[in-house]
Amino acid sequence: MLQKRYFTAFLAYGGCNLVLGATAAALCAYIAPAAAGSGIPEVKAYLNGVDAYSILAPSTLFVKIFGSILGVSGGFVLGKEGPMVHTGACIANLLGQGGSRKYHLTWNWLKYFKNDRDRRDLITCGAAAGVAAAFRAPVGGVLFALEEAASWWRSALLWRTFFTTAVVAVVLRALIEFCRKGKCGLFGQGGLIMFDLSSNVPSYGTQDLIAIIILGVIGGVFGGLFNFLLDRILRVYSIINERGAPSKILLTITISIITSACSYGLPWLAACSPCPVGSMEECPTIGRSGNFKSFQCPPGHYNGLASLFFNTNDDAIRNLFSRGTENEFHMSSLFVFFIAIYCLGLVTYGIAVPSGLFIPVILAGATYGRIVGTLLGPMSDIDPGLFALLGAASFLGGTMRMTVSVCVILLELTNELHMLPLVMLVLLISKTIADCFNKGVYDQIVVMKGLPFMEAHAEPYMRHLVASDVVSGPLISFSGVEKVGNIVHALRITGHNGFPVVDEPPVSEAPELVGLVLRSHVLVLLSGRNFMKEKVKTSGSFVLRRFGAFDFAKPGSGKGMKIEDLDFTEEEMEMYVDLHPITNTSPYTVVETMSLAKAAVLFRALGLRHLLVVPKTPGRFPIVGILTRHDLMPEHIHGLFPNLRKSH
Amino acid sequence: MLQKRYFTAFLAYGGCNLVLGATAAALCAYIAPAAAGSGIPEVKAYLNGVDAYSILAPSTLFVKIFGSILGVSGGFVLGKEGPMVHTGACIANLLGQGGSRKYHLTWNWLKYFKNDRDRRDLITCGAAAGVAAAFRAPVGGVLFALEEAASWWRSALLWRTFFTTAVVAVVLRALIEFCRKGKCGLFGQGGLIMFDLSSNVPSYGTQDLIAIIILGVIGGVFGGLFNFLLDRILRVYSIINERGAPSKILLTITISIITSACSYGLPWLAACSPCPVGSMEECPTIGRSGNFKSFQCPPGHYNGLASLFFNTNDDAIRNLFSRGTENEFHMSSLFVFFIAIYCLGLVTYGIAVPSGLFIPVILAGATYGRIVGTLLGPMSDIDPGLFALLGAASFLGGTMRMTVSVCVILLELTNELHMLPLVMLVLLISKTIADCFNKGVYDQIVVMKGLPFMEAHAEPYMRHLVASDVVSGPLISFSGVEKVGNIVHALRITGHNGFPVVDEPPVSEAPELVGLVLRSHVLVLLSGRNFMKEKVKTSGSFVLRRFGAFDFAKPGSGKGMKIEDLDFTEEEMEMYVDLHPITNTSPYTVVETMSLAKAAVLFRALGLRHLLVVPKTPGRFPIVGILTRHDLMPEHIHGLFPNLRKSH
Repeated sequence: MLQKRYFTAFLAYGGCNLVLGATAAALCAYIAPAAAGSGIPEVKAYLNGVDAYSILAPSTLFVKIFGSILGVSGGFVLGKEGPMVHTGACIANLLGQGGSRKYHLTWNWLKYFKNDRDRRDLITCGAAAGVAAAFRAPVGGVLFALEEAASWWRSALLWRTFFTTAVVAVVLRALIEFCRKGKCGLFGQGGLIMFDLSSNVPSYGTQDLIAIIILGVIGGVFGGLFNFLLDRILRVYSIINERGAPSKILLTITISIITSACSYGLPWLAACSPCPVGSMEECPTIGRSGNFKSFQCPPGHYNGLASLFFNTNDDAIRNLFSRGTENEFHMSSLFVFFIAIYCLGLVTYGIAVPSGLFIPVILAGATYGRIVGTLLGPMSDIDPGLFALLGAASFLGGTMRMTVSVCVILLELTNELHMLPLVMLVLLISKTIADCFNKGVYDQIVVMKGLPFMEAHAEPYMRHLVASDVVSGPLISFSGVEKVGNIVHALRITGHNGFPVVDEPPVSEAPELVGLVLRSHVLVLLSGRNFMKEKVKTSGSFVLRRFGAFDFAKPGSGKGMKIEDLDFTEEEMEMYVDLHPITNTSPYTVVETMSLAKAAVLFRALGLRHLLVVPKTPGRFPIVGILTRHDLMPEHIHGLFPNLRKSH
Repeated sequence: MLQKRYFTAFLAYGGCNLVLGATAAALCAYIAPAAAGSGIPEVKAYLNGVDAYSILAPSTLFVKIFGSILGVSGGFVLGKEGPMVHTGACIANLLGQGGSRKYHLTWNWLKYFKNDRDRRDLITCGAAAGVAAAFRAPVGGVLFALEEAASWWRSALLWRTFFTTAVVAVVLRALIEFCRKGKCGLFGQGGLIMFDLSSNVPSYGTQDLIAIIILGVIGGVFGGLFNFLLDRILRVYSIINERGAPSKILLTITISIITSACSYGLPWLAACSPCPVGSMEECPTIGRSGNFKSFQCPPGHYNGLASLFFNTNDDAIRNLFSRGTENEFHMSSLFVFFIAIYCLGLVTYGIAVPSGLFIPVILAGATYGRIVGTLLGPMSDIDPGLFALLGAASFLGGTMRMTVSVCVILLELTNELHMLPLVMLVLLISKTIADCFNKGVYDQIVVMKGLPFMEAHAEPYMRHLVASDVVSGPLISFSGVEKVGNIVHALRITGHNGFPVVDEPPVSEAPELVGLVLRSHVLVLLSGRNFMKEKVKTSGSFVLRRFGAFDFAKPGSGKGMKIEDLDFTEEEMEMYVDLHPITNTSPYTVVETMSLAKAAVLFRALGLRHLLVVPKTPGRFPIVGILTRHDLMPEHIHGLFPNLRKSH
């Protein structure tokens, strides 16, 4: 490049990026498609009770880690924060199931998490640890896990996530101390606080409040627009991505070329600026990072746009946040950078590479914050660097709609406690405004991916329906002592995971609801092959003798036993098996005339998977149906009652 | 005092304190007994669903504000933080019910909180605002409200409390700005951060971790001991306080004299120290506050103990936290101060004065932290002032058992983000150790006051019982169209707040559960006096015509309508009234054989007040009983099944 071979330089730069990006995309496309994107929506859905196998599988973990490293080094406009949250959750899941049987990594002492609630808690802790490590913000990690990730909060959960992030903080701190002598590249620099802005009390007056309100409004509008455009782009991408792995890789390559072209081409537009006199920092910088990039400028000069584009993300943010540098960047440079980052951030998210949204959002927000700060410079007492911080806050509030956690994360990133009231205010304004347009970006992605996420509140139209209105499909129930053939048949023809058990004469006087059996438990029981010739109730002692408690525990990743794995002889099919020992005799029930809204609240508040609907009047068969998560989804209800939407 | 009239000086000092203390006690004892103490346990119980009228009454608010001012100025070892939380909750309650009818303060536009959930949310916000104002810690306020106060968390609640505390922060900041010129006494000094310790990165090594662990263990042991002793002392006090207002005042006077004697007498024990050379601050201080108090020392000298005792609480804490002042306090002074504050804090809490626990706990913790810091001084890189901070954290963790909120509050108090990993670690250790001994101090007080607080989890022994086991008392149910006389009789002889409604022939074919009516709704309906001669079902249009939606809304403070207020003629008593229009037809129900643990979880998770128990087998009366909060209390269950405790 020094020899003016610009095109060769571009080829070298773009080529490197392309190879890195294509490798990441290939990993994603062939090994673990679930690793693409941020991962926060998936973790959120999992913690809401959506049990999709691949979300937290070991292969996803592997691709997430290496794909994220390749993606960030490939120069894409994407962050490592979301992937780190997903990585944390994957590691927690791996620990929670006592290792992975598929990959022959198992630890027996870790298998005490074989139930939904403990596993969910562990994965919440993992997500918190991810944020804590990504931003070096332990308290922010706890709050992120509670505000954005978790669907059920408990005091114990708070305490557990706090413990996790405290360990993360101590380990991080120890590693930084260990790396201080430069043994680990850039890692040891800076300490726990990534962008330290702390200073004396910045004074601000009433006129600054107006600036804050303007920033909040801008953040809300840009954030709402960002979510809207992202939704559209993701819909287009999903059509492309459905065509298979090669088109995924091709898309990634296209974006990689566009990104390289932008970051190589745009700095040519900016004029060279003379280095500030008396600055402590080297100018222009020779090494990898630093405040000022030369980029073809004469000695003693630097290129403002290159200082933003040709830099690590962290250093670009540090440049934007830096104080006392009012004139470091030209207005035009900031404008170009903002538009480029906003657009690249939008088109980058959907590609098949692990990609976080935090960094693009913070970069774009900090840029327009600095623009506003520079424009209002003469009227305001606040430094443009602090305006950049407020801009980042407003854009985070506008896209992600988090409040407390963003506030604390920014606080821990910058150590600037004096700005706290202003950050809170700007977050409130931008979130309120953006909420008028659409939902938060993660909620949108959850809906777009078709994950059956349950909101904490019931929808208004549910008040006009009763529980039995939405029960779907033919009801399949077992007798307390059921013929093996019937069970096998039922398991083969349906995908239901829960079946009601009803005692009928002669076992009981009248048909009577005993409870609920889970498919997985029935499969374990069948695999024991202790069948009877007669239809009689047993003492249940066989089950205790034959199985340990962990045999019925929830299998980890891996789908557990399947009905296809079991083969029975004709003779066995005609025999009987007693389901009583494995029946949950206290299932939650609602009467068929219960308001659907109340049933949905019950379902969600208790984190159920099956809710039995029982008849109101006596003398009928003692069960009307089973409500599952899918029966309560808006799509299902609107499908059954198309007129409902119109009346509201 | 300068004229050596020591005894007269003591009389003047002690007398002032005594008058202030006695006035506070009189206010408390005669006007609002509920205003005594911290108020946090009461707010916590209210937010758990305990509906005690006086907890948040306007009279409590009045006494809380003025009693707290008098108590703090009376020199007691107590804080203003707990009372401020209670004050915030009271104000929220007053707003939430649209003012107080009793005191003729009503605003109609505020009455949109006439249901349990919205009112609870508002009061949670009030509590958060209290903490935010007391510590000038807006984020800490949000976390306190969520971790300690609220029993149900929702995303919306987080957002609302965040909004509240953001407003608090902005208003506080504006007031401080306004008062900066000294117009409002000490208020304008210091800005939003009360004890600013920020500095360069304090380095710490492995040997400091050992010191942290020691501090954590000490905090856990002292905290557990504090809670144990406080429980004992409160039990003794409750016997004294039950004798009536005069004994309450007498107790307060005794404690006031003891406190005055301690803070006047103990500084005599300390020797005078020469003022540090080159200090920026005035020494000795003449005014009200400051780092160094002369107290009979020659010019150029100060008395260490007097600097702690004869000071505002804030300044004492600031002295203890101050950095670079290794030798400001003698070891013996710190020991004496610690023992005095620990004991005075214990005996002060139970008196009839609004009294918070935060300040005594922080003072005592900071003192032993400083002692440990001074002892370990040569081995450690951390300043004794920072050890004082860690000591305060450990004692807060040991008594109150909060984690995230204490961590953030301390962070916002001191602006010392670099210490965050250590603060987290020390909190974890002290909480874990103290949890081995007993429960948190607020939980203890809730239990001691007999408030029926429901834990989020079910107790293990509940798994061995079923729902119908704990249903108590005779069941009183109404017909769908019931005789007025029967209703009036039932309302007079029982205190139940909910009654099941059962349709019987000829209204329905067989006895059938319609739903649940609330006492308050029945009273409103009866006051309409639209009775019928015949037992027939109506269309319900009368109710819509006669009443507005707000007539049935939950009354605010004030107990609402009473059955004694209604008088009916003999003729009216023989007539019928249709209860269908006011019946909740979708009450939550459980089958009688439902595990009690599951019923309790349902009750708690949904925040119910009544849970209907229905029979399992058909052909019986369609309702077995009603479970209320009191039926699920451990005391009630252990009363019914005394053997249960032994088996566990």
